[in-house]
Amino acid sequence: MSDIKRVPGSVVTRSQAVAYGGLVFTVATAVEKPADFYLQMKDALRAVDKQLAAAGSDKSRVLTVTIYVADVARKAEINRAWDEWVDRSHPPVRACAEVVLEGADLVELVVTAAAGHLAHG
Amino acid sequence: MSDIKRVPGSVVTRSQAVAYGGLVFTVATAVEKPADFYLQMKDALRAVDKQLAAAGSDKSRVLTVTIYVADVARKAEINRAWDEWVDRSHPPVRACAEVVLEGADLVELVVTAAAGHLAHG
Amino acid sequence: MSDIKRVPGSVVTRSQAVAYGGLVFTVATAVEKPADFYLQMKDALRAVDKQLAAAGSDKSRVLTVTIYVADVARKAEINRAWDEWVDRSHPPVRACAEVVLEGADLVELVVTAAAGHLAHG
Repeated sequence: MSDIKRVPGSVVTRSQAVAYGGLVFTVATAVEKPADFYLQMKDALRAVDKQLAAAGSDKSRVLTVTIYVADVARKAEINRAWDEWVDRSHPPVRACAEVVLEGADLVELVVTAAAGHLAHG
Repeated sequence: MSDIKRVPGSVVTRSQAVAYGGLVFTVATAVEKPADFYLQMKDALRAVDKQLAAAGSDKSRVLTVTIYVADVARKAEINRAWDEWVDRSHPPVRACAEVVLEGADLVELVVTAAAGHLAHG
Repeated sequence: MSDIKRVPGSVVTRSQAVAYGGLVFTVATAVEKPADFYLQMKDALRAVDKQLAAAGSDKSRVLTVTIYVADVARKAEINRAWDEWVDRSHPPVRACAEVVLEGADLVELVVTAAAGHLAHG
């Protein structure tokens, strides 16, 4: 058994999430790709929840998120989905930058979390 | 008490810094936003210092920094502020990429540090 | 002796790799800069291998990689080099974003790995 747990993704050349040493790393985009920043952000955050669960964490344990967005002028829509999702008792550090994403992606989330569940503090 | 320490930011939906498992994560932009890459970088690094202090670390313990900059052609000005700031006995790994930032931001810094102070080595 | 190991880079103001608390952080670009995405990606991954070795890790222990690329439309060439390089028994989490890089750089890799070698799992 390795000390690194890898959650398989859709291709064999990358993992969906990796857990090691009390940390969980995952990257998510929207599963559906409508031309709507709010809906893609909401969907990508839903993917984050699932991937964290698969790797042994949850949103109360997220440490930091980098949001890559296809148009930073649409940040209000991104923030709306974020504000609905975030655990306000345990908010992560957050960065946000506009980049060019692949295909129909409007958002890509790079997440580092602590392993475990149900933080109190 | 949680094993995760969160330093509150200006809004309840994100933290300014987070400490967990010997690591500290923080993101900083300039507090003042003059149209000057050197001054914004200097100011953002000052914010990093404050935020690391609030989370129990300092610049001698910084592991890695990703610099998002609004114009990579202005990297000399970024480097000038960096070179004045960095602890040359304990320099971090560094990445630098031009992205589109929000509003008047010219620089955004994503920092991972080790907890603790006064590294010797 | 510090608990942080820093591998010196080409300038004193940054490190090539840093190891701390079971984690290794490194950033790499291609050493040679031909105008060819595949060749630069291949070369940058070779640099990752060297830098991980210097810091006490290897590609079987890579946790997550962020690929900054100068043209996301050239992702097939990036993927070709990735697929040749990656350890399919231990694939990392991966993010990819188009940004503007400095000078002739077509790719920049930001890598987090676990310390140690020869993972089995």
